[in-house]
Amino acid sequence: MTLREAAPRPQRPAPRVGRTDVVKRLVLGRKLRSAQMHETLLPKRIALPVFASDPLSSVAYSPDEIFLTLSLAGIAAYTYSWKIGLAIAFVMIVVVLSYRQNVQAYQSGGGDYEVAKTNLGGTSGLTVASALLVDYVLTVAVSISSAAQYAATTFAPLREHQVLVAVAAVVFLTSMNLRGVRESGKAFAVPTYVFMAAILGMSALGFAQLLAGTLGDAPSAGLELRPEEHFVDGFTGAAAAFLLLRAFASGCATLTGVEAIANGVPAFRKPKGRNAATTLLLLGGVATTMALSIVTLANVTNVKIAEDPAKQLIGPDGAPVGPDYHQDPVVGQLARTIFDDFAPGFFVVTVATGLILLLAANTAFNGFPVLASVLAKDEYMPRQMTTRGDRLAFSNGVLLLALFSIVLIVAFDAEVTRLIQLYIVGVFVSFTMSQTGMVIHWTRRLRVEHEWAVRRRMQTARVINSVGLSVTGTVLVVVLITKFTHGAWIAILAMAVCFVVMKGIRRHYASVTLELAAEDVDQVLPTRVHAIVLVSKLHKPTLRALAFAKAARPSTLEAVTVANEQGDADRLLEEWDRAGIGVPLKVLHSPYRQMVRPVVDYTRAIQEASPRGVVAVYIPEYVLGHWWERLLHNQSAFRIKSRLLFLTGVTVTSVPYQLRSSSAAAERTEQADDAVW
Amino acid sequence: MTLREAAPRPQRPAPRVGRTDVVKRLVLGRKLRSAQMHETLLPKRIALPVFASDPLSSVAYSPDEIFLTLSLAGIAAYTYSWKIGLAIAFVMIVVVLSYRQNVQAYQSGGGDYEVAKTNLGGTSGLTVASALLVDYVLTVAVSISSAAQYAATTFAPLREHQVLVAVAAVVFLTSMNLRGVRESGKAFAVPTYVFMAAILGMSALGFAQLLAGTLGDAPSAGLELRPEEHFVDGFTGAAAAFLLLRAFASGCATLTGVEAIANGVPAFRKPKGRNAATTLLLLGGVATTMALSIVTLANVTNVKIAEDPAKQLIGPDGAPVGPDYHQDPVVGQLARTIFDDFAPGFFVVTVATGLILLLAANTAFNGFPVLASVLAKDEYMPRQMTTRGDRLAFSNGVLLLALFSIVLIVAFDAEVTRLIQLYIVGVFVSFTMSQTGMVIHWTRRLRVEHEWAVRRRMQTARVINSVGLSVTGTVLVVVLITKFTHGAWIAILAMAVCFVVMKGIRRHYASVTLELAAEDVDQVLPTRVHAIVLVSKLHKPTLRALAFAKAARPSTLEAVTVANEQGDADRLLEEWDRAGIGVPLKVLHSPYRQMVRPVVDYTRAIQEASPRGVVAVYIPEYVLGHWWERLLHNQSAFRIKSRLLFLTGVTVTSVPYQLRSSSAAAERTEQADDAVW
Repeated sequence: MTLREAAPRPQRPAPRVGRTDVVKRLVLGRKLRSAQMHETLLPKRIALPVFASDPLSSVAYSPDEIFLTLSLAGIAAYTYSWKIGLAIAFVMIVVVLSYRQNVQAYQSGGGDYEVAKTNLGGTSGLTVASALLVDYVLTVAVSISSAAQYAATTFAPLREHQVLVAVAAVVFLTSMNLRGVRESGKAFAVPTYVFMAAILGMSALGFAQLLAGTLGDAPSAGLELRPEEHFVDGFTGAAAAFLLLRAFASGCATLTGVEAIANGVPAFRKPKGRNAATTLLLLGGVATTMALSIVTLANVTNVKIAEDPAKQLIGPDGAPVGPDYHQDPVVGQLARTIFDDFAPGFFVVTVATGLILLLAANTAFNGFPVLASVLAKDEYMPRQMTTRGDRLAFSNGVLLLALFSIVLIVAFDAEVTRLIQLYIVGVFVSFTMSQTGMVIHWTRRLRVEHEWAVRRRMQTARVINSVGLSVTGTVLVVVLITKFTHGAWIAILAMAVCFVVMKGIRRHYASVTLELAAEDVDQVLPTRVHAIVLVSKLHKPTLRALAFAKAARPSTLEAVTVANEQGDADRLLEEWDRAGIGVPLKVLHSPYRQMVRPVVDYTRAIQEASPRGVVAVYIPEYVLGHWWERLLHNQSAFRIKSRLLFLTGVTVTSVPYQLRSSSAAAERTEQADDAVW
Repeated sequence: MTLREAAPRPQRPAPRVGRTDVVKRLVLGRKLRSAQMHETLLPKRIALPVFASDPLSSVAYSPDEIFLTLSLAGIAAYTYSWKIGLAIAFVMIVVVLSYRQNVQAYQSGGGDYEVAKTNLGGTSGLTVASALLVDYVLTVAVSISSAAQYAATTFAPLREHQVLVAVAAVVFLTSMNLRGVRESGKAFAVPTYVFMAAILGMSALGFAQLLAGTLGDAPSAGLELRPEEHFVDGFTGAAAAFLLLRAFASGCATLTGVEAIANGVPAFRKPKGRNAATTLLLLGGVATTMALSIVTLANVTNVKIAEDPAKQLIGPDGAPVGPDYHQDPVVGQLARTIFDDFAPGFFVVTVATGLILLLAANTAFNGFPVLASVLAKDEYMPRQMTTRGDRLAFSNGVLLLALFSIVLIVAFDAEVTRLIQLYIVGVFVSFTMSQTGMVIHWTRRLRVEHEWAVRRRMQTARVINSVGLSVTGTVLVVVLITKFTHGAWIAILAMAVCFVVMKGIRRHYASVTLELAAEDVDQVLPTRVHAIVLVSKLHKPTLRALAFAKAARPSTLEAVTVANEQGDADRLLEEWDRAGIGVPLKVLHSPYRQMVRPVVDYTRAIQEASPRGVVAVYIPEYVLGHWWERLLHNQSAFRIKSRLLFLTGVTVTSVPYQLRSSSAAAERTEQADDAVW
């Protein structure tokens, strides 16, 4: 018979709110019931800032990367920056159009992972997943490092402490995200709109000044740029072509973030696919406009930035500017130029850029835990990744992402240029495989679809995704070739490790499931129960354990004690007789003064004598309140228990006796019960 | 009925020797059975080196302390060093004679602690114990620091690394002592005799040279000594008297170690008391002879040592010698002078001195753990202090002493002069209280003793102990007054902390014993048993737990599962029905996604409904092999178990299911079973 009703909620006084709980509530806000899930879904006007921040924010550093890479060939190469910008804009348009197909076809939040898994099989899915996980970590590291750079541009005193600022920012984001996705969406909506207004406004003002002929020169316009040795003799040949490709590859950072929407579809309100597609189009347009405007304005204001400014930039006096020179990012320099002496304008732009970069990192904080939980459901990740915390966020994923990105930030000294070399590979792996998956998806659908209008739509979609595949595939090859030795190998290695670990986890779970699968024979009852009560002294806990063991009516019941010295054993036996306890007491002598092994050996011997029976070991334990009290008592009970668990056909029963001091500890434990953050 | 035979030793293959075990055997040697205890007792010729090293070794630094203190008043004060030496010799004779009474009257190894406790009551006993514990730690710190200083005198390259050398020495001694007392006695006998021969031989040679008129000047004889400001105008008045008392107090370090024998009586062969008394007399004579010889020779060879040599010592050029000057201890300077250019003589003296200081520290390693175990038997210390390790040493006491002395050495930079300020207070507290105890002891005995000859002996003994009391009491007052602000306050504070902690431990044990005392009512059986099997999935471990629970024939049996989502619960219920398990499955809904609290609340509700019954909770657990495997599985079982232990009337039974990978872990655990070192 099976009871289907919910268990009666036991009558308990309202739970006391302990110290841990107060802290947790302050950080996280009130608990949410699982049924409140729908309340955390995003309308479009909130979804745009949450997901748009990633692709939009890259204009804070991707134009810089184009110029930085070209700077190696000197000022002559700068003229190619327009063309590179246009190439990137083209790729962006293709990717956005392709992904509009993705988000409408797959809406579960599996994103590229799901597309690849469904259409290309598990291994491809796992490849995409590895690539995305690594890139989420890099998104946080790059965006936050760039944000710290903008913070230093705005407030000079922070220049020495960018790593610290970056780590603090990650910690802040972590706590926001443990509070749950919706709340962070609301908190972040305003700065996204401010950023869009600031950058687009600044660009418009810049172009107006250009037309009016009043546009000034950038602060770095007066510096000279010294090319690297290869390029002293001019910018030609294979080396030049390779450098252009590398600049293009670095600039493709502008495209990151598009995949975040694909993975975030479940967070949209219905109709999810349509809303996601619209959001995608909107932000593709905005991002392209911004990036192109910034590249153009940087060219006309003669911005000079270099990979190694201390040596490459030559001051008006003919000497390098040296290590004291702080190189402001392009957006910062444009703001100084366009707003000229109007300080508030400069501040709005740099602060808004810093904030949008925070939001970009936040996108990863939305995407990573969701992806991890999807992977955990497929048994590629530890089960704990599917646990939703008090505020319904996937807390463990959030914490894992925070950990890895802090490691990266510290390891790379929060330097954007070094981190960016690791970046993008993952995104383009994911783009390419997902587009391949979509082409196969449509091909399969077309095979069974007969209605003309639908077939027509599918064929169009397949063409779009095919173009997407060829473009993203080409870019992936370019990125791999140009960036491998500059750091991309680290990202690729990390992906490989991710892949292998996830395969291993899946294999482990599968083998455990197989090993544990229930069979009919498992329901056979043991033939007899031999109960052993472990005794150290004759006191209340012992008597209670004896009483409880008797209540289970075992086939045999005996008490067992371990004696280091004959005198101790004799005393206990005498006391035992005097108390008139109707259970025999067996003494295990331990000449080498061990506690655990005699018990384990004895238990095993009993069990092996009757293999189809069970040995039930009862351990009297007294429960103490304070950690220092525990120091004063031998911890043999715990050691014996954990050792006995390795024996087959043995059960271990703790019979607790609560000392008065334990009640305070019980309350503390009550609070810590389910400490999932 | 009570079985008195030893349990049959279960038939097991010879235990495999694992990695941990090999290391342990290499460090400790083969295990010893408890019955081998008598083999570790000491004959006199071994006892002398083991216990003599402490009082003998102090000649390595105590003459220095006399001169160092006097140096503050310039060379004029040096003339008092003879008189101070004689005063200390007088105190030594009194203390040795007094302690001959102690060791014959009290032989259990409780030493001063036992004397004070028996005659003056527990609080006095505890005061003595605190004083001794602190002084044992200081004995190690002072002796080892001094040994490091001699090592630096002998091998110049060690001069920069005295702290490291000292810490390494403590670690070495710790491992020796974990091997057991006898072995370390044997290993240390030779150097003690070498040291005695070296110092007495050197002194004899020195006096011969003095008579022959060939005794040269010490290396530092040519230096001038600049007095402190107070004493520039001469060595008179209260300041001078105070300085003399301080020099005397520091020189009294010569007396430390006498009490070590009193605490070490049980380690002597029978007749224990008589052997201990003889050893005491022997070493009292030797120590006094050595100390006086060294003070005399230092005077006639014009040794100059100063508390702050860099500033106080003036070279022949009229300038201070500066920080590069390494001040050799008196014994080192005498060896250089007397053996002149005969290097081997110098080396034998300094190396033997270094070694004897190691042995002195070793005395503390013998005394501290024994005292701690005696205190633990009286419940003033954690029970673990009575645990004898594989080699029958009180391992935990050894480790505790090592820990504290390393802390002191590091905190005081291994500087003997600074450490010595903390020293001696404890010894004289212990001397004084123990002599008071002995006076009371004889007075009590005299009250009931009627035989004339015995009364006569007792009266003599009482006179001796009374003289001992008045002398040691006076010295204690002098030590307290002259050293308090120089560092003795730290030692006194440490003793107070020791005292309070030990009182607290005793109170804790007493209250636990009282709370746990068995009463007849404790044997009453529970009225009914309500068994609950916790279920997460329907697999082998669950079925096994159900079978074992059934075998215990409870009054009620039900399975319970916690569901975060309705879907999960429905799936499990369906599976449950299909498997045809004849036990109802109850679903606890957990809207806040907790695992532990629903189970705890439900269990408590059941228990409270029938307070005289017992709720038996069965937890199916699968046992995994590797730590990383455990990361992949929720640890709810452990959290639920530890939480349920706080409920009254509840037993918790683990029903383990061993996965194949667990067998390797079982073997590892087998090795670590009783890891007492």
